[in-house]
Amino acid sequence: MSTDHGATFTYTGGPVAVSERTREGLGRPVLFEYDPVYLQRFLDVERRVAEVFHTTGDVVVMMGEAIVGLEAGAKGLTRPGMKALNLVSGIFGKWFGDWLRDLGAEVIEIEVPWNEAIDPASVERAFAEHPDIRLVGVVHSETPSGSLNPIAEIGPIARRHGALTIVDAVSAFAGTPIHHDEWGLDITVGGSQKCLGAAPGLALVAVSDRAWEALRANPAAPRSSYISLLDWKDRWIDAGRQKFPHTTSVADINGADAALSELFEEGLDASYARHRRAANACRAGVRAMGLDLWVTDDAAASHGVTAVKVPDGIANGDVIAHIRAKYGVMISDGEHGPMTEAVFRLGHMGPASRSLHPVVALAALGKGLRDFGVPVQVGAGLEAALEVLGS
Amino acid sequence: MSTDHGATFTYTGGPVAVSERTREGLGRPVLFEYDPVYLQRFLDVERRVAEVFHTTGDVVVMMGEAIVGLEAGAKGLTRPGMKALNLVSGIFGKWFGDWLRDLGAEVIEIEVPWNEAIDPASVERAFAEHPDIRLVGVVHSETPSGSLNPIAEIGPIARRHGALTIVDAVSAFAGTPIHHDEWGLDITVGGSQKCLGAAPGLALVAVSDRAWEALRANPAAPRSSYISLLDWKDRWIDAGRQKFPHTTSVADINGADAALSELFEEGLDASYARHRRAANACRAGVRAMGLDLWVTDDAAASHGVTAVKVPDGIANGDVIAHIRAKYGVMISDGEHGPMTEAVFRLGHMGPASRSLHPVVALAALGKGLRDFGVPVQVGAGLEAALEVLGS
Amino acid sequence: MSTDHGATFTYTGGPVAVSERTREGLGRPVLFEYDPVYLQRFLDVERRVAEVFHTTGDVVVMMGEAIVGLEAGAKGLTRPGMKALNLVSGIFGKWFGDWLRDLGAEVIEIEVPWNEAIDPASVERAFAEHPDIRLVGVVHSETPSGSLNPIAEIGPIARRHGALTIVDAVSAFAGTPIHHDEWGLDITVGGSQKCLGAAPGLALVAVSDRAWEALRANPAAPRSSYISLLDWKDRWIDAGRQKFPHTTSVADINGADAALSELFEEGLDASYARHRRAANACRAGVRAMGLDLWVTDDAAASHGVTAVKVPDGIANGDVIAHIRAKYGVMISDGEHGPMTEAVFRLGHMGPASRSLHPVVALAALGKGLRDFGVPVQVGAGLEAALEVLGS
Amino acid sequence: MSTDHGATFTYTGGPVAVSERTREGLGRPVLFEYDPVYLQRFLDVERRVAEVFHTTGDVVVMMGEAIVGLEAGAKGLTRPGMKALNLVSGIFGKWFGDWLRDLGAEVIEIEVPWNEAIDPASVERAFAEHPDIRLVGVVHSETPSGSLNPIAEIGPIARRHGALTIVDAVSAFAGTPIHHDEWGLDITVGGSQKCLGAAPGLALVAVSDRAWEALRANPAAPRSSYISLLDWKDRWIDAGRQKFPHTTSVADINGADAALSELFEEGLDASYARHRRAANACRAGVRAMGLDLWVTDDAAASHGVTAVKVPDGIANGDVIAHIRAKYGVMISDGEHGPMTEAVFRLGHMGPASRSLHPVVALAALGKGLRDFGVPVQVGAGLEAALEVLGS
Repeated sequence: MSTDHGATFTYTGGPVAVSERTREGLGRPVLFEYDPVYLQRFLDVERRVAEVFHTTGDVVVMMGEAIVGLEAGAKGLTRPGMKALNLVSGIFGKWFGDWLRDLGAEVIEIEVPWNEAIDPASVERAFAEHPDIRLVGVVHSETPSGSLNPIAEIGPIARRHGALTIVDAVSAFAGTPIHHDEWGLDITVGGSQKCLGAAPGLALVAVSDRAWEALRANPAAPRSSYISLLDWKDRWIDAGRQKFPHTTSVADINGADAALSELFEEGLDASYARHRRAANACRAGVRAMGLDLWVTDDAAASHGVTAVKVPDGIANGDVIAHIRAKYGVMISDGEHGPMTEAVFRLGHMGPASRSLHPVVALAALGKGLRDFGVPVQVGAGLEAALEVLGS
Repeated sequence: MSTDHGATFTYTGGPVAVSERTREGLGRPVLFEYDPVYLQRFLDVERRVAEVFHTTGDVVVMMGEAIVGLEAGAKGLTRPGMKALNLVSGIFGKWFGDWLRDLGAEVIEIEVPWNEAIDPASVERAFAEHPDIRLVGVVHSETPSGSLNPIAEIGPIARRHGALTIVDAVSAFAGTPIHHDEWGLDITVGGSQKCLGAAPGLALVAVSDRAWEALRANPAAPRSSYISLLDWKDRWIDAGRQKFPHTTSVADINGADAALSELFEEGLDASYARHRRAANACRAGVRAMGLDLWVTDDAAASHGVTAVKVPDGIANGDVIAHIRAKYGVMISDGEHGPMTEAVFRLGHMGPASRSLHPVVALAALGKGLRDFGVPVQVGAGLEAALEVLGS
Repeated sequence: MSTDHGATFTYTGGPVAVSERTREGLGRPVLFEYDPVYLQRFLDVERRVAEVFHTTGDVVVMMGEAIVGLEAGAKGLTRPGMKALNLVSGIFGKWFGDWLRDLGAEVIEIEVPWNEAIDPASVERAFAEHPDIRLVGVVHSETPSGSLNPIAEIGPIARRHGALTIVDAVSAFAGTPIHHDEWGLDITVGGSQKCLGAAPGLALVAVSDRAWEALRANPAAPRSSYISLLDWKDRWIDAGRQKFPHTTSVADINGADAALSELFEEGLDASYARHRRAANACRAGVRAMGLDLWVTDDAAASHGVTAVKVPDGIANGDVIAHIRAKYGVMISDGEHGPMTEAVFRLGHMGPASRSLHPVVALAALGKGLRDFGVPVQVGAGLEAALEVLGS
Repeated sequence: MSTDHGATFTYTGGPVAVSERTREGLGRPVLFEYDPVYLQRFLDVERRVAEVFHTTGDVVVMMGEAIVGLEAGAKGLTRPGMKALNLVSGIFGKWFGDWLRDLGAEVIEIEVPWNEAIDPASVERAFAEHPDIRLVGVVHSETPSGSLNPIAEIGPIARRHGALTIVDAVSAFAGTPIHHDEWGLDITVGGSQKCLGAAPGLALVAVSDRAWEALRANPAAPRSSYISLLDWKDRWIDAGRQKFPHTTSVADINGADAALSELFEEGLDASYARHRRAANACRAGVRAMGLDLWVTDDAAASHGVTAVKVPDGIANGDVIAHIRAKYGVMISDGEHGPMTEAVFRLGHMGPASRSLHPVVALAALGKGLRDFGVPVQVGAGLEAALEVLGS
């Protein structure tokens, strides 16, 4: 058992450093799943996840990283030959389209540059052109590039046109408002390991009644499978929540329980404000340091992670390794596809959005780049960030 | 966040109470996946899981409860029309057959009463009758009924006849010897939350080269999926172990890292002996109390869990709830299908196999049954168990 | 850092195994003493300690094991030439007399056999004979011998005769009722590491107004010292609880905070009942095993620890070491002076009084002795204990 | 149990935030003191404390905050009428003189301004003038004012003149070299809660053979007392380390065990360098921000804490409370006597000396002051600190 606890500070695209409360939760005794205390804890997690989604409908807490929820949703709702609209503002959206195509859908794609947000008007136009679109896939917060899509506007358009909507809200969950019911969403997937500040290993899935109908009607929807939403519906929810369809990840649930308690003691609005303030501080700092933000439009910027363009002539991987080794701070690159080498990412999700953490992230990036000869105005950047944090 | 820590003692079929070391692991800081410390930790977990399987081949640590490994194996190896031999000595074996049939295999089934073990001779006979069997499914330790199959003999038979073997060794892992290579197994699936004494949420999968070939050759094998072994092979193992195919369950890995360290400091043989001694103590105790063991043949008994027949006229659920409420001890029923009401199960996996834990489990069951009017010789049972533990 | 976590079960005269809640408390971040969160936590500890003492007067939480409170009390109240009555029913009482003599008091001593309790009538007689007694020293629960004195009756006698009373209630605190005000006590000292189930390192001291007056009037009372109650009174209590007289033991306070929260959620009466039930179970078990209790009169028996006579021809240290090595259970001897070799002690303080812990303690002792050839009726003993626990 | 974990960042004069390793240690099961695992752990703590002191002589780990060691040393070595030299460069030195006087010593005092260090030449002169000085008291690192005395030079002078030396090395321990034997010191007292990064509650005391002789020869030296070094010598060290003179603070020892393991894995020299670098970074930052250091001579500056003069017209308490409330950062004032309002203190002891922590401390102070209208060059200060940390 290595006794090295790793970086002193972690500011990445996730998994993120978790709070003290979460760590206490994670370290609790592992109870039997049907110990009444655990069972109640699981129900409490479900209930509060629903509150974060602002839904009165069903929520499924799947036992795997958020992607298992997206796979479950895509495989559950897609039918061969179905016309699907896929909205691409980054690599996660791009990949979602690959899934839809693999599943036999006829995919209409709207793609914007990966540092911009989807324009809702373009969605309206797509429906006007293809009134038979039955499924819309969209990413709320594109974690690899730190951008944000206007789901509040896109959801209702899809609903009005009778299409189901699957939303990848993995890194938005708990840091940015999500109104599953009000926005007419059908399957919305949140992650535990981002703004909630819990450990990775849980997919938090809100499912509308329309989605359940579609899942049931789809013979290809996964059943008797780890990636089956219907198993959870039939064996757990509709069976009175007595038996789990398979063993749950007790420690991860314990951690999420603690993180949710902390979240609700603070209040959802306070959490949103905290994440937004940290993002604003990071953005102000990056600009004042003389570096370039990947997403230039503040309105299109993620509240959870700030992507910074890699200066010409610099290999971001080298800088990141240097910062980790020299200063004990872990930041991340774009991590996926072409984003990998395009950006530095400063994560400010969960505990990393508190206190002066954004200043530490900026100091590490700024000084790290300067060590590579980039003429960064570190001091000016930190001052700018502090101004925002103190405002 | 509920502050109730649940049962004082947990002796179930799993998840089991984890060790102090594991809890320290679970409660550690959640690092970024590409923090060098975490990356090394993950590699250390993989390497030691391979040691427990006694394999020099690949091991995949999948991010989900053990069943995800079984599903991945079944879906990866099964092809429509393939002839498969399914060995059934309990409900898990039974269910595995359902999967094979759903996947289009032609299933030959050998079933024995659920308190007995598969006779290797019957496997030989099946191959004699069906030389075109290409896949064998078998459960090493049937957790719901506490029985054990002779995999050491069954594996080589299948290998000799050119069939691939998938073994559900979930509750055997780390408590009962498994020799993946020597026994000619192809996909062997262990669980983290049983004899290893870590938290649930990881499927530990040993994969032979023959299995990889079969997976690659199977167009229906899952790809770009949470249940894909090939994703792990292509994107992780063969790509130099630089990037995970999806986010890993950091806390669960941290816990498994700690549990494996503890296991190897003790030694595998000592762990096997410890589990066997606990099983023997429980069995001696049950007999001396005048109760009936579900598996009467000691050689067919699981080392991790002891199933006790429910006396006539008793509803095991009531007794279990009473024991939990009155004495703070959590034991389990059979939990699955017809086993649910047939047995009490006293788990002695992981830390519960240490010290006098088996005595506590027996005392709780014996006194609990006596409280329901069953004339149990509690004292005699505890004495018998202590004799074994002290021998 | 050794990774061995020691005995699986600990049933000693203290320090005792602490609860999960306490361990979470102990492991919390170490805050600065004047962080508002810590300051409030300290106040909460004080307030609840006062509730356990049933006092509306001052409580001092001293930073050291309980003995520092006794020394502070003895040195603070004793004046050369003062006549003091020392009540001796065990070695702690004996030692207290040595202190009083060292401090120049003229000591009248009532001593009973160390397996009996002080008779209040004898205290009345002492006052009749020596109306000028100004100080009474008495031990509530004599931990080394597991006996209990009737403080509820002794306190009022001393008060009626105008004497101050110092009570060593170290192992009674939180497990046995203490009514500091109602019983007219002046300095009562409780321990954190006994029935409260927190870590050792804190002396919990209730101080009456009469005691403060006496302390102030005594020029020899410690001042500007680690063992000074007056420092706490002057610099902390009377100065508005803004600055500690010296650095507090943050982790131990964090642990006590958690233990007290758990205690008050359960309720004091429930805690008393739990400790008494565990004691009764142990006593029934010892008797049924055919062993001899050190304290034969149930009314004089401690609720926190049961002392068992060492059978002839047996060296208790050897048996204790054997039980620890072979069964992973830690029990203790008498630990002090002549008690050391006279008894085995089974502690049932704090978490060890819950669930079936007393059965484990008895099983370990019974089987351990049998391994040394003592003809113990282990089974009968465990049955008897279970009967009490289930009643 | 409050679930608020307090400040996000703590940079005070101590107690300091402890490391992850220490917290794991603190949260471990509380073992019985005579459990062989705990006993070994205690011995390991003693041995490594001696290594930090660079002594081959005895070390006593007393169960209370460091001041208990200083009191034990002062009361043990001082005899009425003895001539003692007290070196005062701050309030702790001042107070030590009060103790010496209370104990009846004839005290010669050398006092320098509280932002300077004692000049060894002045000590030589004192001995020339008073060759009958038998005791020297000196503070290694004056925590309230962040200064450092040249013990390496003062110790040998005292030794050469036949005087015993007591050193308050509380906040130097593990962050600044201490050579108890080589420097000829007699009683050196270190703290657990400063540069070691463990919890408060332990006094780490190195005792020379000459000191033991003097203690034994002193009839007024504490005996049978919580503040007795002789009790530890007689009942613990010389009795073969079998029985503690009183109950030890198990959790605090567990924490110190972990902290010492971490320290020795890193290496003492690396720890010294780390603390010095953090101090240099803070000093550079303070200067570049345009603020005034309390100790202007770098050679006289503590490696563990940096004191900053409070700008005119500012109440430091208000600023500290504002920084804590607004930015979640806890720094401290001078805390004792006239130092209280004279300085801000930025602690960089233990984990707070790692990574970019000094930058966070400076950012909090700089921005906090600016919020009060002080024209601080925050950015310049943070740049200067980063330069030092990156050098």
